[in-house]
Amino acid sequence: MTESDRPLDALNAARNKRVIVELKNNRQYIGKLKSFDIHINTVLDEAEERENGELKRKVGTVFIRGDAILLISPE
Amino acid sequence: MTESDRPLDALNAARNKRVIVELKNNRQYIGKLKSFDIHINTVLDEAEERENGELKRKVGTVFIRGDAILLISPE
Amino acid sequence: MTESDRPLDALNAARNKRVIVELKNNRQYIGKLKSFDIHINTVLDEAEERENGELKRKVGTVFIRGDAILLISPE
Amino acid sequence: MTESDRPLDALNAARNKRVIVELKNNRQYIGKLKSFDIHINTVLDEAEERENGELKRKVGTVFIRGDAILLISPE
Amino acid sequence: MTESDRPLDALNAARNKRVIVELKNNRQYIGKLKSFDIHINTVLDEAEERENGELKRKVGTVFIRGDAILLISPE
Amino acid sequence: MTESDRPLDALNAARNKRVIVELKNNRQYIGKLKSFDIHINTVLDEAEERENGELKRKVGTVFIRGDAILLISPE
Amino acid sequence: MTESDRPLDALNAARNKRVIVELKNNRQYIGKLKSFDIHINTVLDEAEERENGELKRKVGTVFIRGDAILLISPE
Repeated sequence: MTESDRPLDALNAARNKRVIVELKNNRQYIGKLKSFDIHINTVLDEAEERENGELKRKVGTVFIRGDAILLISPE
Repeated sequence: MTESDRPLDALNAARNKRVIVELKNNRQYIGKLKSFDIHINTVLDEAEERENGELKRKVGTVFIRGDAILLISPE
Repeated sequence: MTESDRPLDALNAARNKRVIVELKNNRQYIGKLKSFDIHINTVLDEAEERENGELKRKVGTVFIRGDAILLISPE
Repeated sequence: MTESDRPLDALNAARNKRVIVELKNNRQYIGKLKSFDIHINTVLDEAEERENGELKRKVGTVFIRGDAILLISPE
Repeated sequence: MTESDRPLDALNAARNKRVIVELKNNRQYIGKLKSFDIHINTVLDEAEERENGELKRKVGTVFIRGDAILLISPE
Repeated sequence: MTESDRPLDALNAARNKRVIVELKNNRQYIGKLKSFDIHINTVLDEAEERENGELKRKVGTVFIRGDAILLISPE
Repeated sequence: MTESDRPLDALNAARNKRVIVELKNNRQYIGKLKSFDIHINTVLDEAEERENGELKRKVGTVFIRGDAILLISPE
């Protein structure tokens, strides 16, 4: 996620790496960033759901609708 | 839901398989993923509604408006 | 609402049949699905409003703005 | 509001007739449907505002922004 | 605001006349309708803010973002 | 902010003058209107934040995302 | 962030400088502005999260979805 000019380049640099996806409803999904699109629809593999930093459950692969996402950062 | 480059490819790989659709209002629909479009409008067959993991009612086929959806994951 | 590839095909198969339209504000409208468009603007005939499954009032024909809709399923 | 294939046809059939416009904030406007557009921006003539079915005030002509509207039905 | 076929025609007929603009947050602005566009972005001149019908303050000219607007009606 | 036909003309007339920008979350920013675009994304110079009319802090230059804005008026 | 005609020019002038990004949910991210796009999707480097001005945690690089952003200003 360095040396890029557009926000999506930064996401691209994080592909196949573990990221934290924070949702607007305060949930967090941590997993390997598999894919995303211009709406920030995002697919994570080997994902788990956390609430306040605590593991809630493992969800495997998960498709997250972009408009529900607040931010994405490397774990 | 593996080996894909775009988020919708992941949904496509889940077609005809059982998925969990979580809505922004905290309801869950579990059913066979019949179809979806770019807005993530989604149709499930043999679906049931759950709240906090508990079966609330069977709904058969259901069309869910995409903007109500938080995430979709394999059951 | 079977054997279709796109979500709107499923709605099309339900045309002229009785459906339940659930709104984001928890109201339900049950009626004959007369028409819909790509925004999921929906017209029901012989419709009635229910709240928590209980009949509230008969509304005859009703045009529902698509963005207010959570889901549509056959009655 | 019968024999139409698209939702806006149903609104068109209600033109110049008295309709109830329910807003997402629970207010109701009853008046003669003067005009509408694809955003469901709507103009009523001889309109009155009701809250819980009770007359609150007469507003004459009123332009209602489409995204505030929940549904429109004949009075 | 009579004899028009599209909602924006009705607004056009109200240009340079005093109108009430009600916002989704329950505030009201009353002033001379100077201009509007297809998003219903609206400019009032000689405007004042009211809350529950009571004068709160004079604001002179005011640009209101269209998506904040619930309805517009002649004073 | 006079003698204009479109809402953005009114904003243009206020360029380089001090304006009050009210946000949907009830905060106010007062500053010199530097620039705006069709989304009403707005940049103020020499800006300060107020809450209920009281100075909260000076923010210098600030870019405000258009969809957060309720209204803009000359100070 | 001076001498520019469009809001995005102001963001461009802040590139590689430290900025405060305030979100609609009241969180703040402070970091070096790496990139942004027309949706105001924004990437910060060397970022930290603050709540009410107090350091909550360091997040390194962070991609923030534009529609979650209230404003951006130089630190």
